[in-house]
Amino acid sequence: MNHHLGAHRGASAPRRSPTRILLSVPAAEADAFFPPETVRALEQLGEVTEIQPSALQDPDAFRAAAAGVHVFVTAWGFPRLDATRLALAPELRLVMHAASSVQTLVSDDFWAAGVQISQAGAAMASSVAELSLTFTLSLLRRTHRLDHALRSGRSWQEARAVERAREIRDARIAVIGASRTGRPYIETCRALGAEVRVYDPYLIPPDPLASLAVDLPDLLSWADVIAVHAPDTAESRGMIGAAEIAAIRDGGLFVNTARPSLVDMDALFEAVASGRIDAALDVFDIEPLPGDDRWRGLPNVLLTPHLGGASAGSRRRAGHIVVDEIRRHLAGQPLQHALTRTDLERMG
Amino acid sequence: MNHHLGAHRGASAPRRSPTRILLSVPAAEADAFFPPETVRALEQLGEVTEIQPSALQDPDAFRAAAAGVHVFVTAWGFPRLDATRLALAPELRLVMHAASSVQTLVSDDFWAAGVQISQAGAAMASSVAELSLTFTLSLLRRTHRLDHALRSGRSWQEARAVERAREIRDARIAVIGASRTGRPYIETCRALGAEVRVYDPYLIPPDPLASLAVDLPDLLSWADVIAVHAPDTAESRGMIGAAEIAAIRDGGLFVNTARPSLVDMDALFEAVASGRIDAALDVFDIEPLPGDDRWRGLPNVLLTPHLGGASAGSRRRAGHIVVDEIRRHLAGQPLQHALTRTDLERMG
Repeated sequence: MNHHLGAHRGASAPRRSPTRILLSVPAAEADAFFPPETVRALEQLGEVTEIQPSALQDPDAFRAAAAGVHVFVTAWGFPRLDATRLALAPELRLVMHAASSVQTLVSDDFWAAGVQISQAGAAMASSVAELSLTFTLSLLRRTHRLDHALRSGRSWQEARAVERAREIRDARIAVIGASRTGRPYIETCRALGAEVRVYDPYLIPPDPLASLAVDLPDLLSWADVIAVHAPDTAESRGMIGAAEIAAIRDGGLFVNTARPSLVDMDALFEAVASGRIDAALDVFDIEPLPGDDRWRGLPNVLLTPHLGGASAGSRRRAGHIVVDEIRRHLAGQPLQHALTRTDLERMG
Repeated sequence: MNHHLGAHRGASAPRRSPTRILLSVPAAEADAFFPPETVRALEQLGEVTEIQPSALQDPDAFRAAAAGVHVFVTAWGFPRLDATRLALAPELRLVMHAASSVQTLVSDDFWAAGVQISQAGAAMASSVAELSLTFTLSLLRRTHRLDHALRSGRSWQEARAVERAREIRDARIAVIGASRTGRPYIETCRALGAEVRVYDPYLIPPDPLASLAVDLPDLLSWADVIAVHAPDTAESRGMIGAAEIAAIRDGGLFVNTARPSLVDMDALFEAVASGRIDAALDVFDIEPLPGDDRWRGLPNVLLTPHLGGASAGSRRRAGHIVVDEIRRHLAGQPLQHALTRTDLERMG
């Protein structure tokens, strides 16, 4: 670690020259995060320069763009902030990440540099939770199997010959992870009448959800639906292995809108391909999913291309968080979504 | 009308001989409606004989089965109760329909015969409403388009190039019909944060939903989602014609779990096939849907084979309603789900 890096940076006291903000969000997402009214709000906080993250891979381009900049606004594709790049941004005080995970952005050097980092993942939570609910209802109601059967030319009667639909009010739902996305999912499922239990090693009193906590093996054999909402951390990786998938009961329904690294995808594929369980997946071990990927052909899966957090509302709210956090930073107020190195180990 | 038919039937006073109940539900549905514990409850109310409805088309078989029977328990495929058949069932006092619509069961003669009729449609309401919610979330989240694109071998990036998902909390939802299925749908959508407006000519104060009522043309151009929940009556038939479908805004989402007769299906098909609007349909003008039906090939539709009311919970609850209604009838208490001819004209 380069502890001296921090020494180069001043306190975040009010400065005379205007704050310089580098806005670097992929073009395809820029308007969703930053519609004109949000850009105007950002421009009231400082001098905003826009540049595509792909253009910043070149060291000279990075140097030119970063010189004198106080705030980076990032999303995807921004270069990792290692010692070299941090040295090219001596005025940097805040990295405001408009998306969720900052794993690809930070480095050991970053944490030593005395730069604050905040992210807008809170804006995505309800969007991810709602995709998980959509998946849950679709699998319970068998709309995936029914739709696929009718689209593939099966007869009406063949299509109807699936296991009878179950209403969510009669369903047992196992949630892996009382996370930021897991919590609104839990709340909605319970509001709709489902019986919910949760596996999360950090879920202890006085957390109001602590009464729902059970051990993982008990959860898997009990549930009609298993919904993954755990963060991608060293601890959670591979949490749902072959043994756990074998413990899911016949006819179980598996929903993953979190991370593929939590799940043994080979074991899951075998269980789904055999017809023993159905799955709805927004995340895959290989992304982008290849054109001939094994998951694409199964009648009992529902597939979406990693868009859980990408709703219009999620992006719009993230833009608001970005503006609000920068405003707080400039006013010397505590950030609401600041991340520490310890947070990152736990949240992923 | 044969008003004299009513005169043949005695009051529903307690009788000395055991009540005779004819249970005639299609084999594929019998266990779902009447699991062993429900059959036992029914057997405590009278002498239960089971027969397949298909076996009752023959007049001699009907005569033999109906003789001396006080209660018919029906679902689908039971013969229409015209004067001839009513004359073969002189002891009949109650028709207890385990499903919803009794349109194919009753006749002018039936209403004159002094036989009570009740149905268990209330058991289906939450099931239909929940399929409508599942459709709504699926269309808003574009899971139908995303899944179809990935399944048809489109690239990850092509699949992602759909209009951005909208969360239900940001959606405007138009409900056609504050019906038994419409009401729980409205309640759930509002609980999930949607803005809901309703077209229903019968929706007037002091109904708590009256404040949501708007005229149909205003509703169609305002809404992100149009969900049909109106009953099939002379008044509602063709309510959503070509002009109404043209009034739906570009990108509108059309959900029908009610009846196809409400909608001009040719006009709907054209609007959907052009890509202007997306649709999720559980009901079709031709059922069973032929193997090469035009709806089966469209990437922007989600199709299910008329199973909205067919959840496990719906069937189980319907069986309970059947038992409870027969118990009330035998105790001389008012039925909770009795139908009159006027009800039928309004409810479909």
